[in-house]
Amino acid sequence: MRLSRRITGLTGGGSDGWDLFLQARRMIAEGIAVTELTIGEHDTRTHSSILDAMDRSARGGHTGYAMVPGTALLRDTVAARVQERTGQRTTRDNVLITPGGQAALFAAHSAACDPGDTALFVDPYYATYPGTIRGVGALPRAVIARAEDGFQPRPDVIEAEADGAVSLLINSPNNPTGVVYGRETLEGIAKVCQDRDLWLISDEVYDTQIWEGAHLSPRALPGMAERTLVVGSMSKSHAMTGSRCGWIVGPEAAISHLITLATHTTYGVPGFVQDAAVFALGQGRDLEEEIAAPFRRRRDLAWHILAGQNAVRLSPAQGAMYLMLDIRATGLSGEAFATALLETHHIAVMPGESFGKAAAGHVRVAMTVADDAFVKALKTLCHFAAQQASGLPEG
Amino acid sequence: MRLSRRITGLTGGGSDGWDLFLQARRMIAEGIAVTELTIGEHDTRTHSSILDAMDRSARGGHTGYAMVPGTALLRDTVAARVQERTGQRTTRDNVLITPGGQAALFAAHSAACDPGDTALFVDPYYATYPGTIRGVGALPRAVIARAEDGFQPRPDVIEAEADGAVSLLINSPNNPTGVVYGRETLEGIAKVCQDRDLWLISDEVYDTQIWEGAHLSPRALPGMAERTLVVGSMSKSHAMTGSRCGWIVGPEAAISHLITLATHTTYGVPGFVQDAAVFALGQGRDLEEEIAAPFRRRRDLAWHILAGQNAVRLSPAQGAMYLMLDIRATGLSGEAFATALLETHHIAVMPGESFGKAAAGHVRVAMTVADDAFVKALKTLCHFAAQQASGLPEG
Repeated sequence: MRLSRRITGLTGGGSDGWDLFLQARRMIAEGIAVTELTIGEHDTRTHSSILDAMDRSARGGHTGYAMVPGTALLRDTVAARVQERTGQRTTRDNVLITPGGQAALFAAHSAACDPGDTALFVDPYYATYPGTIRGVGALPRAVIARAEDGFQPRPDVIEAEADGAVSLLINSPNNPTGVVYGRETLEGIAKVCQDRDLWLISDEVYDTQIWEGAHLSPRALPGMAERTLVVGSMSKSHAMTGSRCGWIVGPEAAISHLITLATHTTYGVPGFVQDAAVFALGQGRDLEEEIAAPFRRRRDLAWHILAGQNAVRLSPAQGAMYLMLDIRATGLSGEAFATALLETHHIAVMPGESFGKAAAGHVRVAMTVADDAFVKALKTLCHFAAQQASGLPEG
Repeated sequence: MRLSRRITGLTGGGSDGWDLFLQARRMIAEGIAVTELTIGEHDTRTHSSILDAMDRSARGGHTGYAMVPGTALLRDTVAARVQERTGQRTTRDNVLITPGGQAALFAAHSAACDPGDTALFVDPYYATYPGTIRGVGALPRAVIARAEDGFQPRPDVIEAEADGAVSLLINSPNNPTGVVYGRETLEGIAKVCQDRDLWLISDEVYDTQIWEGAHLSPRALPGMAERTLVVGSMSKSHAMTGSRCGWIVGPEAAISHLITLATHTTYGVPGFVQDAAVFALGQGRDLEEEIAAPFRRRRDLAWHILAGQNAVRLSPAQGAMYLMLDIRATGLSGEAFATALLETHHIAVMPGESFGKAAAGHVRVAMTVADDAFVKALKTLCHFAAQQASGLPEG
């Protein structure tokens, strides 16, 4: 039977970028002890007090259909959080609750793009981005953010790619690079969006993981609230990756149509999960900082390890739970480096090539294992890189 | 800002069919006691033993990302259930777990249809169907199943609408009509699908609610497993509407691409919800019959009430939690009847027109309140209809 071109073409004919991750998982299934520094998943589980809140809600009877836009309580809670952090008036009518951040990315592009439209995204990118754009029938077009520019996208480069585009997807703090976009970058992006009448889809799921500087949401910039769809999630900020609870914050008219879309694509999010999210957000910044603390600590540990060598160069590690390491001194591609590291040392890191052209010759390290294992793996990686760089045989 | 034509056109320019439901909810919010016979939601909550299983799973640490296709255990459990009930070999590679049946309907159409393709669906229909088809950029085309044919779709009518179509969506046991498609109907549908090379998308979420005859999945028919995408869900069979856990069962090649789609649209389903589903399905048919029992009982109660009058005619009530009542003897449309009944007697039923042209002059009654309230509301409805039919003033 013929399947749609949309679904058969989601990965653009190539890999979906997860090959190394899956290879590592196969090795683990075979009983090999692999240090996984691949996906953005905390090494802690969801806090028991949040699970208490979820169980209380379910036992209390919140097991039927929740209203499709989200519960009034969670929409109000998200709106208050966004208003406090952006200074922009935000009410529940600006908020749609979604079954996770990925569903929010898909819905936001559904709202912005018709089939055949061009949608911009920044390369390096989170692995699902181009497929998400193809999933709504639109054409992904990459805007390169160069390593030489510290992976900050340049407004003139966006401008040069904007012909025929209807939207731009950005992500700060950034996965995979760990870069936080500065005010100058964001103001430049805002100007291009206004000049070229683009929707700005702003993935801010790492907004609580800031190691240097401050998070600035483009919703806070003049004239941008009306053209920005902010994607948020409980996953990274509250170690609730498995709960699949996210949101879109945007103009009322867009949210109104997005609610209709949700009726036809997901039909809402479990009420007990939403009640758990309300509880978690109610704990305020203290809990967010507690969840972020291990990554902050490991980023500092990494800093010291990497300072003592020159085979590997660290990109500006300003936020998010990742380090982007330039391994071009080894002469290897990110893929070859990651594959060799996995096979010889059972350490899994993601090839930069999984995240686009601009991160070629890099590997992404997720800081998602216990400190001692993390330090050991990073030292091994540096030693391995040094051997490769000096042309010495491994061992 | 311009929104996509897709998202602004989801409801086809008209209402999304939920007006009366929302009007009833507004009255309830104002403190009016409304008897709600609108949406397909059990009057019981999810069983506490299922909530125990969910809590055990979450406390046990299943709070991180679950694998996108679904957990191996749930996929295996669903596969075994489908194999047992269809006689068709079914493995986990035939199963994708989705965040609810609605997400499965959307994903199935994404797999079958490209933008601009025509997708068939049967009228009367569950309110989201045409919008789901529009959501993937395809064109919905209705196949009328007439009240005079007991709402069984006729293969010759499907054949007559099949030019340019790539898929056909059916639903048996049927929402909104309560009809169960017979073997002859399904074999006729299968032949049209084979002759015209259509995907058959078979929504079987009411498969445990059969009051007369037997449920037959088209996956069980010769040559149909390779072109059928079965949509299932925990919602109706296990009173887990709020848990948002469903699936698609289909050919391996389609499921493989649907997994890639899930990576880009939802990124999986909470592991603790999936573990709860495994527990619930593990209780076998006993629990399914316990959940279905109140609807079976009320359907029998309704039978007796309706037998004693002639202002309202019951369509064949063979399955699902709904009764479709023909109120054309009143001279009112379904909308006018439902609105008047809500305003004068505070009883909310859905107008047939919410479900398409073929159910005009009907109202759908969900059997989803306690027996005594159900009996009282149905008697009132009959009395009201008799008054309307006789032209007597209300009172």
